[in-house]
Amino acid sequence: MSPATTDAIILNEVGRRDGLQNQPRILTAQQRLQLIEALVAAGLRSIEVGSFVSPKAVPAMAGSDEVIAGLPRAPVYWSALVPNRRGYELAKATGIGALGLILATSNTFNEKNLRMTTAQTEATVLELIDACRADGIDALVYLSTAWACPYEGWIDEDVVMAMAATVFAAGAKAVIVSDTIGAAHPGAVKRLMNRLAAEFGAARLACHFHDTRGMALANVYAALEAGIRKFDASIAGLGGCPFAPGATGNVATEDVALLAAQSGCDTGIDLEQLVAAAELARSLTGTAQGGHALGWLRRQRDGGQQRNPALWPR
Amino acid sequence: MSPATTDAIILNEVGRRDGLQNQPRILTAQQRLQLIEALVAAGLRSIEVGSFVSPKAVPAMAGSDEVIAGLPRAPVYWSALVPNRRGYELAKATGIGALGLILATSNTFNEKNLRMTTAQTEATVLELIDACRADGIDALVYLSTAWACPYEGWIDEDVVMAMAATVFAAGAKAVIVSDTIGAAHPGAVKRLMNRLAAEFGAARLACHFHDTRGMALANVYAALEAGIRKFDASIAGLGGCPFAPGATGNVATEDVALLAAQSGCDTGIDLEQLVAAAELARSLTGTAQGGHALGWLRRQRDGGQQRNPALWPR
Repeated sequence: MSPATTDAIILNEVGRRDGLQNQPRILTAQQRLQLIEALVAAGLRSIEVGSFVSPKAVPAMAGSDEVIAGLPRAPVYWSALVPNRRGYELAKATGIGALGLILATSNTFNEKNLRMTTAQTEATVLELIDACRADGIDALVYLSTAWACPYEGWIDEDVVMAMAATVFAAGAKAVIVSDTIGAAHPGAVKRLMNRLAAEFGAARLACHFHDTRGMALANVYAALEAGIRKFDASIAGLGGCPFAPGATGNVATEDVALLAAQSGCDTGIDLEQLVAAAELARSLTGTAQGGHALGWLRRQRDGGQQRNPALWPR
Repeated sequence: MSPATTDAIILNEVGRRDGLQNQPRILTAQQRLQLIEALVAAGLRSIEVGSFVSPKAVPAMAGSDEVIAGLPRAPVYWSALVPNRRGYELAKATGIGALGLILATSNTFNEKNLRMTTAQTEATVLELIDACRADGIDALVYLSTAWACPYEGWIDEDVVMAMAATVFAAGAKAVIVSDTIGAAHPGAVKRLMNRLAAEFGAARLACHFHDTRGMALANVYAALEAGIRKFDASIAGLGGCPFAPGATGNVATEDVALLAAQSGCDTGIDLEQLVAAAELARSLTGTAQGGHALGWLRRQRDGGQQRNPALWPR
């Protein structure tokens, strides 16, 4: 199924978290707020603002509470990431309404990334879902390494199906199926997302892609074909990993926004304002490359010979 | 429909023509042959070697006859592009077995690019198809600007359907549906290619995408979903237009080859040898950026910490 023209697509901006934690330059809370304001001005209505992890392990995320305290009063679905009970309590104290919880499909990844076995991670996530329910907070579960794990290789779809069933049964509001290392390809994306959508409903699912192999946007399209309408994306393609030279970031917000606009799907995003936000992200970080569509979008905005209103997305 | 694991995908390498004619540095016939040999070593089995256009208008294509005379004796489907009768006679004299002919869907594009009206261009193409038939040469018709024209905007699908019917009726061996300026998006690609495949059969169709908006690989996947199994691609993403700064080239051969390999489709291509060909293209031209997947492919090839055989395409 191709998206109908009446379809809306929700882009959840994760540049401030997944993106910034992988940049060498650390942004102040004020700089992060400046970027958030540019994103809100561009029409983003779902933004992950940071994470409550140990500032020693991820210095870029220190001050997430300060960022949340300074958020603009706008109709945005704000969320933050928490890896454990300690992070949960810190996040809860800020009054934020939605929290991302992480559960990798692979034992080795849970052990290396969170220093827990999968059973321990799952127990933690279930406990935090319970806490969210009691506290009236949306629990959004990231199923990490859903297609591939850097240590264990390709992941069995049945493992993902079973984990999704467990967290939905516990009360998760949504599951974000994540290609953490950017290894998925569109055929596999469509297959897994079709299975998940048939079992749990597309409206409760989202996808999170990285562009390591240059396939992120094709994967977004494959997920659209499976009925998925919610995507994580990162302004200017922020991301990459300081420990993996050349690894790329999340799929760029501007690329997904352009794909959605050309597909006739409403995102509420103003593409010209989004270009301004991408330029700000590039200048603040000094490293973000920008999405694959950014050059074209800039030429369109800047006008002159390159501008052709007839070829603006319809 | 997702491609089955037994499917074969044919990549037609156009870097030597569509790519090189848009590079500032002009390669000698020997350098072009060196690149062709690297591509043959990588397993490419369909290669467009040049075009017989006026050397004054496109200096990079001068010496196409010398290139053809020096081609390696390999089981490759060689082709060249001809815009008119004069080019046809020159190409025919080389003994090449397949010729690309160009017909744009848009009047303005035909006038600006070929200096003929659409009716004149169509008459020329039909005459050349006749000549091909008489001479035992495969006539491959490029339907240019099939989704969008830089001057006229979006193209009516019915115009493309009618043109394809005309050239197939005249005896065209194949139609290459071309997103000349890289404006198409996957929904439109799937829709048009589904219509064309239903009418004329997918086996007689190919697609040609440019990456101007960063959407080329998603478009390839959309065409795969419509049953298309032949794609033009350009090593290292060679291309772009000297008259449109920042405009990007064809979809990169390494990106399509990786997508195909991950999708379980046979291309006959050795990805490591393909990386070597992409590096050669970059060093010869000094401008090619490389496909979006090239960084990852290089890290895999170079081994070390980045190498993970478990995540090589299966």
